[in-house]
Amino acid sequence: MRVLGVDPGLTRCGLGVVDVAPNRTATLVGVGVVGSSHELLLDARLLVIADAVDQWLEAFRPDVLAIERVFAQTNLSTVMGVAQVSGVVMVAAARRGIPVAMHTPSEVKAAVTGNGRADKASVTAMVTRLLRLSEAPRPADAADALALAIAHAWRSGNAFSPDKQGTTAAQQLWRDAETKARVTKNKEKPGATWS
Amino acid sequence: MRVLGVDPGLTRCGLGVVDVAPNRTATLVGVGVVGSSHELLLDARLLVIADAVDQWLEAFRPDVLAIERVFAQTNLSTVMGVAQVSGVVMVAAARRGIPVAMHTPSEVKAAVTGNGRADKASVTAMVTRLLRLSEAPRPADAADALALAIAHAWRSGNAFSPDKQGTTAAQQLWRDAETKARVTKNKEKPGATWS
Repeated sequence: MRVLGVDPGLTRCGLGVVDVAPNRTATLVGVGVVGSSHELLLDARLLVIADAVDQWLEAFRPDVLAIERVFAQTNLSTVMGVAQVSGVVMVAAARRGIPVAMHTPSEVKAAVTGNGRADKASVTAMVTRLLRLSEAPRPADAADALALAIAHAWRSGNAFSPDKQGTTAAQQLWRDAETKARVTKNKEKPGATWS
Repeated sequence: MRVLGVDPGLTRCGLGVVDVAPNRTATLVGVGVVGSSHELLLDARLLVIADAVDQWLEAFRPDVLAIERVFAQTNLSTVMGVAQVSGVVMVAAARRGIPVAMHTPSEVKAAVTGNGRADKASVTAMVTRLLRLSEAPRPADAADALALAIAHAWRSGNAFSPDKQGTTAAQQLWRDAETKARVTKNKEKPGATWS
């Protein structure tokens, strides 16, 4: 399954394409950020993003577009622009007959890290690991779009069947990552202990 | 100047086209409402509206599209849908090179009725009068779209030069309308007095 994840925003709109195999393995296909200048009028800014999304849909032909579900309760100063961008992005997909899926940030965090309240660094670290990248995806803003894409693929399948240890694959990967991080940190600071 | 006014909404999106002459005379060209069913998915609902706006832009070829400026502070239950629709509408205009103008509801009310806090009935009555219609425009929801279109044309020109009585043309028309309404009401209830 190929998923285009979109983290909507007027100034920076994250785009990430992943292929997710039936065994849940996710592979990076494309990642980027489209931004529009504050100096442009709002309609021109929205058109920049609409055109970019059209190009991505044309180039990568995803099976589904996953986008963050926007709530009015979040940051009031940016939420209107985020909502306007999300409307534009959804129509671009609908026009091509590509289904649109919405997920909340906590759903994405829970799916990818096992913790619905994970911070940005944790999500980025997990996305890097899940996609088997040697370093965090760039541009950094696009990590959320990749997380959305991975989370959608996992949530839409039988992604949450617990494995034999009673944890999801994401939780297990997260634990592995945590363990690895501790080892690395201990190496850097030999005298440090973990209480 | 031909203006397409759009009162954005997911369930009902008002559309109104007026031609406004240099002498401020406004003439109704087209009016309608495009609605999308709650039973459709959000992306399909937005596409219904995007397609309708495309058809209106194609059919009426306005010089400018005027749309309500949306604030996050307004009705939380509908504001996200309104913002998403407004994004979709603005991109439709931008794609055709048609400029987009935004006006707040109070700017529209002030331009059309002379009172920035006028109620819906007053706006509808004034739109009916300004367009020289024998009855209120139908569908009723579209009166706000027509008000937006008229207000934009007036605000974008030298619309606020006071006439010799020190009132704007809109204010004078409003006073005329109020006077007429009193007369009518007095006729209906012969014994009524206005204190």
